[in-house]
Amino acid sequence: MPSNEKLVLALPKGRILGEVVPLLRRAGIVAEPGFAEEEARQLRFATSHAGLDLIRVRSFDVATFVAFGAAHLGVAGNDILMEFDYPEIYAPLDLGIGRCRLAVAAPAEDATREDPARWSHVRVATKYPDITRRHFAARGVQAECIKLNGAMELAPALGLCRYIVDLVQTGSTLRANGLVEIEPVAEVSARLIVNRAALKTRPEEVSSWIERFREVANAA
Amino acid sequence: MPSNEKLVLALPKGRILGEVVPLLRRAGIVAEPGFAEEEARQLRFATSHAGLDLIRVRSFDVATFVAFGAAHLGVAGNDILMEFDYPEIYAPLDLGIGRCRLAVAAPAEDATREDPARWSHVRVATKYPDITRRHFAARGVQAECIKLNGAMELAPALGLCRYIVDLVQTGSTLRANGLVEIEPVAEVSARLIVNRAALKTRPEEVSSWIERFREVANAA
Repeated sequence: MPSNEKLVLALPKGRILGEVVPLLRRAGIVAEPGFAEEEARQLRFATSHAGLDLIRVRSFDVATFVAFGAAHLGVAGNDILMEFDYPEIYAPLDLGIGRCRLAVAAPAEDATREDPARWSHVRVATKYPDITRRHFAARGVQAECIKLNGAMELAPALGLCRYIVDLVQTGSTLRANGLVEIEPVAEVSARLIVNRAALKTRPEEVSSWIERFREVANAA
Repeated sequence: MPSNEKLVLALPKGRILGEVVPLLRRAGIVAEPGFAEEEARQLRFATSHAGLDLIRVRSFDVATFVAFGAAHLGVAGNDILMEFDYPEIYAPLDLGIGRCRLAVAAPAEDATREDPARWSHVRVATKYPDITRRHFAARGVQAECIKLNGAMELAPALGLCRYIVDLVQTGSTLRANGLVEIEPVAEVSARLIVNRAALKTRPEEVSSWIERFREVANAA
């Protein structure tokens, strides 16, 4: 990676992006026009810093781009970091945005009858099969996970599974689908992540961005 | 599956939905208001048929809902059917919509130098790792696949990989990112799919929907 190459910061589309943009602005990073257009064909954007470009990708892909060194820095929820568990990613800073929690949920009528201690095998629809298997395995329960990319709230009513593991922000999507939270899996917030090799080969540049984001996050 | 339960038809959000709705209308299926609202919390919708509900889920999840019998029918591209290769899914009908192709692409400057016959190992970013591995393995090439959920057009310029395997419709996204098609993988169009168990346990209902869609697709 020659050091005259621009640094690339990968940002997640969707839920968190609206909270990331003000944070970038406070860190002195202004994206070129077009970054805010959700439907744009353009995927890579220059910024007010000659040495820093942004890419806007799906939240799960932020971790992949950073893990493989295709982006040097990124913003990703710890839900995604826990799911992938990439050794190439270093997550030095909690940005304090994108707060929600990962939780187990079930239909309201089942939840009142549940005693989680008695489960031995569960079928779970989730975007997070690895986290889910580890969560249940920690108390000796085998979780058969059905990977869905969205709309897992539909799954119990359609007989696909009895439980889901999903992000919960206000709980209104769960309620709208007759589901209630049974137990928490993890508190979630967005982290600044960096590729470990980039931190070694370009320590001044990468560290100065970490420090700048640290100041901004602490001031919030 | 009691036969007084409603049949559920799973439809894909995004690219194909705009072509599916007119097809449904010609088949006499009108969704309740709210179905057209992309951002609605509601995930399941009644139709003008008392015995048929719609769910609107991500395109990859259509196949999963139908494979597990949570939806009895669905609309899915053969790209997704090839990737998952679920034995529980029967795909009796090409609906002739959502046409595009799955192709290998590379940066324009590499493509002119390529001789695919000489490849022995390739690194490929794709949403379709199974199809990609099989495609390359068929001529003795080992493909190391990096799974991305979108924006794979970014990957070669960022050094993540040299090739991508992705859907191509007009080619304008490829061109905008300096990529060209090297070779086709598969022609893609949307299929009506059914859960094999549902076809056995509720043959009259499921078959009559297949026939109705066949008439509509043939008339188009």
